[in-house]
Amino acid sequence: MHLYDSNIPSGNVYKVQLLLAQLEVAYGTTTLDILAPVSETRRPPFVAKNPNGRVPLLELDDGRVLPESNAILFYLADGTQYLSDDRFERAQTLQWMFFEQYSHEPYIAVLKFFTYWGGLERLRDDELQRLRTRGQQALQVMEEQLRSGDFFVGGRYGIADIALFAYTQSAEAIGFDVGPRVKAWLERVRSTPRFVPIKRDPLGKGP
Amino acid sequence: MHLYDSNIPSGNVYKVQLLLAQLEVAYGTTTLDILAPVSETRRPPFVAKNPNGRVPLLELDDGRVLPESNAILFYLADGTQYLSDDRFERAQTLQWMFFEQYSHEPYIAVLKFFTYWGGLERLRDDELQRLRTRGQQALQVMEEQLRSGDFFVGGRYGIADIALFAYTQSAEAIGFDVGPRVKAWLERVRSTPRFVPIKRDPLGKGP
Repeated sequence: MHLYDSNIPSGNVYKVQLLLAQLEVAYGTTTLDILAPVSETRRPPFVAKNPNGRVPLLELDDGRVLPESNAILFYLADGTQYLSDDRFERAQTLQWMFFEQYSHEPYIAVLKFFTYWGGLERLRDDELQRLRTRGQQALQVMEEQLRSGDFFVGGRYGIADIALFAYTQSAEAIGFDVGPRVKAWLERVRSTPRFVPIKRDPLGKGP
Repeated sequence: MHLYDSNIPSGNVYKVQLLLAQLEVAYGTTTLDILAPVSETRRPPFVAKNPNGRVPLLELDDGRVLPESNAILFYLADGTQYLSDDRFERAQTLQWMFFEQYSHEPYIAVLKFFTYWGGLERLRDDELQRLRTRGQQALQVMEEQLRSGDFFVGGRYGIADIALFAYTQSAEAIGFDVGPRVKAWLERVRSTPRFVPIKRDPLGKGP
């Protein structure tokens, strides 16, 4: 397998790296420059593989490609301990992954990017406030859900946790209030077998 | 089964209504007022069912609840003709559903809401331009994908098409350029067995 990554640390790519490490699957990596005047993810030949121009992209040995971090997680985890066989728990796993992409990532990941890679000073007050309010709401929903179990689905660590961990791990460092249940859950994720941390970026920016 | 809907037409709720109609599943509906000073989706008792405060929400006969439109589609379609049994095609279905929620809905659905329910005049030019540019990019990615088949995954109609149809059907009416392949695909979706159109809103606004 081959994974397309970016030259600055992406939580979305990290999700796949973490699961592949925990599954002990070997793979190659191509790193694209997303800080170039025109991001390498938006230029050929990458756009021929993913017309939506984003990483991560997983390329299988037979040449088939799969974009979208959470779709990749579902594909890789199917049949393993990281994804339940139960139909309702699989739907709940997807519920939390769609929550992550719609209600969490667009606020917390975007604010993380602006904080470490520039752009925060160009945000208007109302835009910054919107990112902070909505990101905080997402963290509150997570805090509420963790009343009912140690992990997000079925009381067991799996890909819903991986998807949510990717950017939640940075939330406190960029100024969000992270509740006690979410903090304890972050530590539980870090304690799972074969856990690997997100890579440091080459410029030493960001957590 | 019971479906929680909103009093103005939601493409996200419509996805579930369309699939349930095509599956010929009977269900009850509760309609929440999202134009109230505090939306009914953000007040108890609904928040007790979905802390994220959004419709659609599916309630099973045993009381279990499932939010997130695309997770509901996956749950309902599993084992039917609307979702492939093939592992890679299932991942591709998720790929297009995550694309819909991350790269399509936040622009096209949001612009649709502002257009028909107020707010367009309060958008700054750069905000409006961002919605138009990103929505148009999503439609271009769809146009590109439809070079390779009549539907989005495996050449067969399924829940990826339902998810993408929900708001794409309104794109031209709110000013987007919709390409010939996407237009032909919209017609193919409308021609599927037991297709039902999105409901008219009570005020007669919107398509």
